[in-house]
Amino acid sequence: MTDLRNKFLESVDKLFERRQFQSLKELFDTMEPVDIAEILAEKAAPERAFLFRLLPKDLAVDVFEFMEGSEREEMLAGFTDTEVASIIEAMSDDDRTALFDELPAQTVTKLLSHLSAEERKLANTLLNYPADSAGHIMTPEFIDLKEGMTVAQAIDRIRATAARKETIYTSFVLGPDRRLKGTVSLEDLILAAPETPLTALVDGNPVFVATSTDQEEAAKTMSRYDLQTLPVVDKEERLVGILTFDDILDIVQEEATEDFERMAGIRPVEEGYLDAGVVMLARKRLTWLLVCIVTQLFSSTILERYTFALESMVALAFFIPLLIDTGGNTGTQAATLVIRGLTVGEIGMSDLRGVLFKESLSGLLLGSVLAALASFRAWTMGTGFGVALTVAISVVGVVMLGNLVGALLPFIAKKFRIDPAVMSGPFITTVVDILGLLLYFEVARRVLGLG
Amino acid sequence: MTDLRNKFLESVDKLFERRQFQSLKELFDTMEPVDIAEILAEKAAPERAFLFRLLPKDLAVDVFEFMEGSEREEMLAGFTDTEVASIIEAMSDDDRTALFDELPAQTVTKLLSHLSAEERKLANTLLNYPADSAGHIMTPEFIDLKEGMTVAQAIDRIRATAARKETIYTSFVLGPDRRLKGTVSLEDLILAAPETPLTALVDGNPVFVATSTDQEEAAKTMSRYDLQTLPVVDKEERLVGILTFDDILDIVQEEATEDFERMAGIRPVEEGYLDAGVVMLARKRLTWLLVCIVTQLFSSTILERYTFALESMVALAFFIPLLIDTGGNTGTQAATLVIRGLTVGEIGMSDLRGVLFKESLSGLLLGSVLAALASFRAWTMGTGFGVALTVAISVVGVVMLGNLVGALLPFIAKKFRIDPAVMSGPFITTVVDILGLLLYFEVARRVLGLG
Repeated sequence: MTDLRNKFLESVDKLFERRQFQSLKELFDTMEPVDIAEILAEKAAPERAFLFRLLPKDLAVDVFEFMEGSEREEMLAGFTDTEVASIIEAMSDDDRTALFDELPAQTVTKLLSHLSAEERKLANTLLNYPADSAGHIMTPEFIDLKEGMTVAQAIDRIRATAARKETIYTSFVLGPDRRLKGTVSLEDLILAAPETPLTALVDGNPVFVATSTDQEEAAKTMSRYDLQTLPVVDKEERLVGILTFDDILDIVQEEATEDFERMAGIRPVEEGYLDAGVVMLARKRLTWLLVCIVTQLFSSTILERYTFALESMVALAFFIPLLIDTGGNTGTQAATLVIRGLTVGEIGMSDLRGVLFKESLSGLLLGSVLAALASFRAWTMGTGFGVALTVAISVVGVVMLGNLVGALLPFIAKKFRIDPAVMSGPFITTVVDILGLLLYFEVARRVLGLG
Repeated sequence: MTDLRNKFLESVDKLFERRQFQSLKELFDTMEPVDIAEILAEKAAPERAFLFRLLPKDLAVDVFEFMEGSEREEMLAGFTDTEVASIIEAMSDDDRTALFDELPAQTVTKLLSHLSAEERKLANTLLNYPADSAGHIMTPEFIDLKEGMTVAQAIDRIRATAARKETIYTSFVLGPDRRLKGTVSLEDLILAAPETPLTALVDGNPVFVATSTDQEEAAKTMSRYDLQTLPVVDKEERLVGILTFDDILDIVQEEATEDFERMAGIRPVEEGYLDAGVVMLARKRLTWLLVCIVTQLFSSTILERYTFALESMVALAFFIPLLIDTGGNTGTQAATLVIRGLTVGEIGMSDLRGVLFKESLSGLLLGSVLAALASFRAWTMGTGFGVALTVAISVVGVVMLGNLVGALLPFIAKKFRIDPAVMSGPFITTVVDILGLLLYFEVARRVLGLG
């Protein structure tokens, strides 16, 4: 695919140099909008605007929808008011909402003025739903049918209204109060005899969500029921919009990114990495780093308490990094498995006991292997049998600790209705570190008869 | 949704106790297959088999497709040969392939014998593509049209063949050699006049992949071009199957899970957490733990080399956990941001310099804040100005180290065409630990004038 784009890029450059604009137009017409958007992204602003104006209007809108935030702003700034109006009007409602979300409020107000009264009302409605709600990203461009219709009438209505609709493959049957009565697929309509009453084909128990439903929840519902379209209803159960296939993919990707960030102790970053400012990125990372370093201050206190042990046996210090690192690693592993299981719904709250049992067992297994290695090393360093034994016991202990803490904390978060992913690796590592140090020096005190 | 399932569950129990099987049948008919599968999962095997037999055949197949691996095996074992044959035959090809994947080879051979000769050939073909290829999960159940048709002929063919096809919303126009000439949407067909030649509606530049294309790659292509259906062609560019919407969602979820596991230093686990055995889980986790602990053995050697420093200033040991933990945390954060950026394609190889610059700057910022906190603590512990200064310098240094190593290693992996996510948190932590310890003791030696 990348090769293909490079070839296109070369052709575009050549045709542009030779001023063969008609051929350029025809070339663009054979390409996918997303590829054109990428090629335009590599051009300087004036050339980009020029090339963009070569595109036929429908294609121009599609290409615009695929452009990055900063490029879009630049383009809009350079356009005449008529050009802006024609693009904004032609965008689909959910893409327009996404565009408005990323622009400054002032620009949005200006852009809203380009819309027709009806379009403006719709845009405002969508913008007023909370940013992470289904209402915010739904599109009101669905096909509605009435209960009393026949198949032939339904198909006629679909043909007549299809042009501005997001999908024609599912239509929505509404009662007189615009309440959702059911859905009917184009497939069933096509395959049925024209005079069949619509009611014979309607799925009367459609799955739906509310405008206030969280987007992640809506995505899960679509994925669970393998739906390509999900109806969104208001408080009175009137159908106000639908979510479609492309919305859900974006949500799933964004949620995964957020979970990755949370698990590394980073507060969710809205922008892409390259677009985000250094200070903003640092701020998103600072919270958990501060929590961890403040917690780690206890580790200094613990070690200070055991000064007597360190002074009489300095070799004990040699294994501190190995020990706490191993505990942190196993904790992160266990937490990752449990968090992912809780997130995709494979693990439920009632599985806690089973999970802890499993982690104890695997901790014992893993700990034994790692302990053998570490204590053998201690022995070859000539630290003596006592230190080697202390290391062995502590590694097994710290691996089990890591597994149990890593498995338990996500359950606790979930219990308090917090995203289990906030029980991030850094935090779990810190907790396990401190418990592990206590364990290590207590074992040392007993085994070596110190203090 | 969960409340709804609980209510269904109660009703099913009541009707079952009262032996009102006709009402049970009717209740099942109003429910979604995935919900029925979940209710059956909570029943003991004999009751489950009994309830399953109440389902009408179409619904039974749908429910079966939603069941878990172990339940399916149990069900198949309890069925008569005729029952097995009717279910296996009626399943869609891609779901059947998924079923065969999780069963023992012997059972698969037995099940294949239940299929008609043609179905068996198809199943075998799909099974012989590598497990992570597009060919393995594609379905050959697509609608094919000929170039010379009119719209009316095309719609007639769709009606006639729709029953066993995965989707009727996109049809595929093939040349005489079965090469893919283009695609046409049902939407365009419905909206066009019946006598229009098909060629007028065909998209002649469809995006497609090869049977050997990696599933992840295919999912990215579908997501990139917002496709609901993706054609899969063989080496001679003949159309052999399609991927659909529900396939891609599963792939995206699985890939995210794998990346989570890799980043925590766990080799990808095929089963869900609860289904996976303890020994298998431990094996998947052991590799990276071993790599890390062997690398950590160097840390013991480093600390041994600096025994003189530890003996003359035991307070230096107090800050070892804090220091290496902070380095590991910042390294994991930086790696997560960079890996995710590389995975979703937002960061490219050419961005390396920009990324390293950004991470240096944010390292300086974050390091300064954390260093102020840590050295203030050192000072209040009465360790003296020298140790406090050593801690301050080292924290800034280790945070910058963490950022640079965390950002650089994923780029190196990508360069060698390895998934950047294998540069797992545990490994980055270990590398940063060791470099951080060296830095700490070298700073200490100079600031405190030791050795």
